[in-house]
Amino acid sequence: MSKGFLLVLSGPSGSGKGTVSEALMKRAKDIVFSTSITTRAPRPNEVDGENYFFISEERFEEMVANDELLEHAFVHTNYYGTPKEFVFEQIKKGEIVLLEIDVQGALQIKERYKEAVFVFLIPPTMDELRNRIIKRGTESEKDIETRFANAFKELDFVDEYDYFVVNDVVEKAVEDIEAIIVAERLRVKRHENIKENVTEKR
Amino acid sequence: MSKGFLLVLSGPSGSGKGTVSEALMKRAKDIVFSTSITTRAPRPNEVDGENYFFISEERFEEMVANDELLEHAFVHTNYYGTPKEFVFEQIKKGEIVLLEIDVQGALQIKERYKEAVFVFLIPPTMDELRNRIIKRGTESEKDIETRFANAFKELDFVDEYDYFVVNDVVEKAVEDIEAIIVAERLRVKRHENIKENVTEKR
Repeated sequence: MSKGFLLVLSGPSGSGKGTVSEALMKRAKDIVFSTSITTRAPRPNEVDGENYFFISEERFEEMVANDELLEHAFVHTNYYGTPKEFVFEQIKKGEIVLLEIDVQGALQIKERYKEAVFVFLIPPTMDELRNRIIKRGTESEKDIETRFANAFKELDFVDEYDYFVVNDVVEKAVEDIEAIIVAERLRVKRHENIKENVTEKR
Repeated sequence: MSKGFLLVLSGPSGSGKGTVSEALMKRAKDIVFSTSITTRAPRPNEVDGENYFFISEERFEEMVANDELLEHAFVHTNYYGTPKEFVFEQIKKGEIVLLEIDVQGALQIKERYKEAVFVFLIPPTMDELRNRIIKRGTESEKDIETRFANAFKELDFVDEYDYFVVNDVVEKAVEDIEAIIVAERLRVKRHENIKENVTEKR
């Protein structure tokens, strides 16, 4: 069995990382999803421990102070973060942990835990990226332009990643990520005693 | 399009690298096979430029002197080697070049061209490895034992490789190698102007 690892799936807004990550979790039965923590109140349809772990601001600040987070961010009046404990426990058990996160979060993780596998999801074209941002339909014209401009800037960070996957057709993007997972599992560095495992088998 | 690369498929005798490499070439249409050179005479069924490039000893020694080979070896009274020119030309064109080679050859290549992707093919068990060596049926009991002992020793070199693939069922081994190829193509370092390719597309 290979050692576990953290797969960071990231990309600018409109790259479709939410959709791809969901489709990947549905198909791949041997991946564990890393659930984030947040201080914001749960929305009506959200389940604690599934969408997020909903925690108090005091607890969040304590976790930051104790260095318990792989990354964290303050977005509009609320904190979001990724607890180390869950990720490292799963990896120790040999699991592959999927973390879907924005580019800023991925860069924070790379500074603190560069052993992770970093995958950058990229839109097929900027027109398509704009369409996807518009399709959400929840934002003003100005917000859309801001998001688009940020996404454009964030494409510069692709060089910080190990792999990139073009998300044109979701199924194809998922297949590409699955191939990355198969290959990463086959890496010699993720195994101990390869020779012994062969020579001691009867 | 990704930059090309050299895929070195290697392993001890009995690991089945010949069979796997042949099956891979049949399935994958976008791989180019690296043909070795040799000074031995062609066997009745062998075609020049297909099985080997058959060349004179003088030419071979000239190529060694001119540093034209990625690796070379002297096996029973004959020379064998891998010409650099073909490999590097194909890589420049963006091709993936498959080189099937023994462990000693792979280690030579690693010293001279570590940018290659090194895959170690491993037998499922030592019993199966012995069976495969015996099945060839061309060797004496003593030769079989020598081959087996060498194979056992060569397993130590797996740590010099990037990936390892267990060759139990050939189709499964080929699929694993195909996943490695897909993943390696998606490596950020194998691409230039990723951002430009997205932003300039309409």
